[in-house]
Amino acid sequence: MNKPKNDTFLRALLRQPTEHTPVWLMRQAGRYLPEYCETRRRAGSFMDLCRNPQLATEVTLQPLARFDLDAAILFSDILTVPDAMGLGLYFVEGEGPKFERPLREEWEIRNLTAPDPGVELRYVMDAVAEIRRALGNSVPLIGFSGSPFTLACYMIEGGASDDFRTIKAMLYDRPDLLHHVLEINAGAVTAYLNAQIESGAQAVMIFDTWGGALSQRAYREFSLAYMERIVDGLIREHDGARVPCIVFTKGGGQWLEEIAAIGCDAIGLDWTTDIGAARKRVGDRVALQGNLDPVVLFAQPEKIAQEVRAILDAYGSGSGHIFNLGHGISQFTPPEHVAALVSAVHEHSRKQRQI
Amino acid sequence: MNKPKNDTFLRALLRQPTEHTPVWLMRQAGRYLPEYCETRRRAGSFMDLCRNPQLATEVTLQPLARFDLDAAILFSDILTVPDAMGLGLYFVEGEGPKFERPLREEWEIRNLTAPDPGVELRYVMDAVAEIRRALGNSVPLIGFSGSPFTLACYMIEGGASDDFRTIKAMLYDRPDLLHHVLEINAGAVTAYLNAQIESGAQAVMIFDTWGGALSQRAYREFSLAYMERIVDGLIREHDGARVPCIVFTKGGGQWLEEIAAIGCDAIGLDWTTDIGAARKRVGDRVALQGNLDPVVLFAQPEKIAQEVRAILDAYGSGSGHIFNLGHGISQFTPPEHVAALVSAVHEHSRKQRQI
Repeated sequence: MNKPKNDTFLRALLRQPTEHTPVWLMRQAGRYLPEYCETRRRAGSFMDLCRNPQLATEVTLQPLARFDLDAAILFSDILTVPDAMGLGLYFVEGEGPKFERPLREEWEIRNLTAPDPGVELRYVMDAVAEIRRALGNSVPLIGFSGSPFTLACYMIEGGASDDFRTIKAMLYDRPDLLHHVLEINAGAVTAYLNAQIESGAQAVMIFDTWGGALSQRAYREFSLAYMERIVDGLIREHDGARVPCIVFTKGGGQWLEEIAAIGCDAIGLDWTTDIGAARKRVGDRVALQGNLDPVVLFAQPEKIAQEVRAILDAYGSGSGHIFNLGHGISQFTPPEHVAALVSAVHEHSRKQRQI
Repeated sequence: MNKPKNDTFLRALLRQPTEHTPVWLMRQAGRYLPEYCETRRRAGSFMDLCRNPQLATEVTLQPLARFDLDAAILFSDILTVPDAMGLGLYFVEGEGPKFERPLREEWEIRNLTAPDPGVELRYVMDAVAEIRRALGNSVPLIGFSGSPFTLACYMIEGGASDDFRTIKAMLYDRPDLLHHVLEINAGAVTAYLNAQIESGAQAVMIFDTWGGALSQRAYREFSLAYMERIVDGLIREHDGARVPCIVFTKGGGQWLEEIAAIGCDAIGLDWTTDIGAARKRVGDRVALQGNLDPVVLFAQPEKIAQEVRAILDAYGSGSGHIFNLGHGISQFTPPEHVAALVSAVHEHSRKQRQI
């Protein structure tokens, strides 16, 4: 057991008391940091950077050197699993992730197999281990993956989509085929997250970026059910410590009660949900992570601090809140505004605890 | 008073009993219909078509000739008001609406004035009157506009946006400026919708396409409050009949109780909200319109019918439901699938009433 000196993040996930509200930011190692852009230039493509454990470690640590963040998150992508299945992940500037070989034919779907995390995803496990070494016992490291449904969106559409009409047509006309993809994905993501945990990840997060594009019934059947299978299959105790698990469905604010029921430790909230109302709805079943609109970081520092305080006050006193954005940080964010956010979270949450 | 022969739509909006659940589709006159594409070719640009009352009438009536729809909706755009303010609306294929002269400087915002609906928007009033003549007393005609916040998104961003960072930066840093734009927009939209009512629109709908991109607090202050002003200022009785008003915030499923409280007659729902749960939340305060995922129309007709029945059953018995999609129909929709949807709504809802 190797407890981090600052374990506020892990304690908050388990709804244990903390001295301040911990904070980290989705995509905190990224293009808004000039030092990231510099490392990225040296690495080559985005995937070259992900596949290089030394450089992935370097960029993972960059935001921690600048800001007083309470957790590190593995530098990687939500789509490494389907890439390891052979679909060929690549990135076009300004267009988001794409696959060279999306699933177009039934036989391609029938041939799909889960990768071996220790082989095809070895580079991720190496990065996790390397980052843990570099972090020492400072702050905990978060591992992650995309959700089975979110992976399937990209695997079937071939990239981002406005309306997801390819995967949704399959969902309605050939649910058997989509369920087959989702089953394979769920098994693959479970094995992948467990391998990350065994390599040193101290908490894991499932990013369900597109579950919120579904109707409630379809969400239950095609996204939530498969996240539940993952949560059921996760290693929950490693190296003498509980490994908490966070589930984040963007646009899932209407379904919090159902998400809380799948056995995760925490729910990520996007900014459209009032975190005070969310807390009332989920009670003490789960912790909540979120949920500042990332665009607030374009406002002036005093306004950022005001919006941070509004969220902390809406959550209220007591444990179980991890501060974060409601979505990944924008590449156009001024880094000094992130500093303002982090100080505001720590300062105001310490004051809340003194009352 | 000129009551339409088929007034099921108007009665359902007022939660009065009807023989079947009325149905119409957002963007029902549009590119998925070959006859629309043909008229559009003759007209020139999209805005040329909007500005030509004869051709706008022609395309408004096209879906009614094909399908047994219970309402017609004015063929126009949600952004005619800022266009009439002089911002220069235009459309780039595949990129959505844009403005030639978006609001960039404070003086441009200070100089903004509401258009005279009888002058700059005369072409809309002419189209409304012409469509009413062409409809005779068959089905009611719906007038509409974008919401003040949605108009402001395009006026300030200059077009669609992934993150709305220009308008949101203004929202957080210069709320006074944004409130000024929204006040002008609210006054302009009120006058515009009232002019449509006086020209013959028998119901009106406010499309708040982007209110759902806000936090709940920001939604209340910058979108909902201005829709409330419009609802307060609308002519509610014309030509001896009540003129119902529908408010639709895409992504607003978490805020239905607050929307119901602004005095509208009906709320539009996108497909992410369970309509049965929504009905329980709003009680008998408002009617509900929606909410099939438009992508269901890519499935086979028997699956479409099944999904239609699921929504009708979720709403349950009793009045106050207007069937619709949860968003505009896709241009790639097979028209015969729309026929399957409309029959399924009428058939199943008649059966529901026989039990």
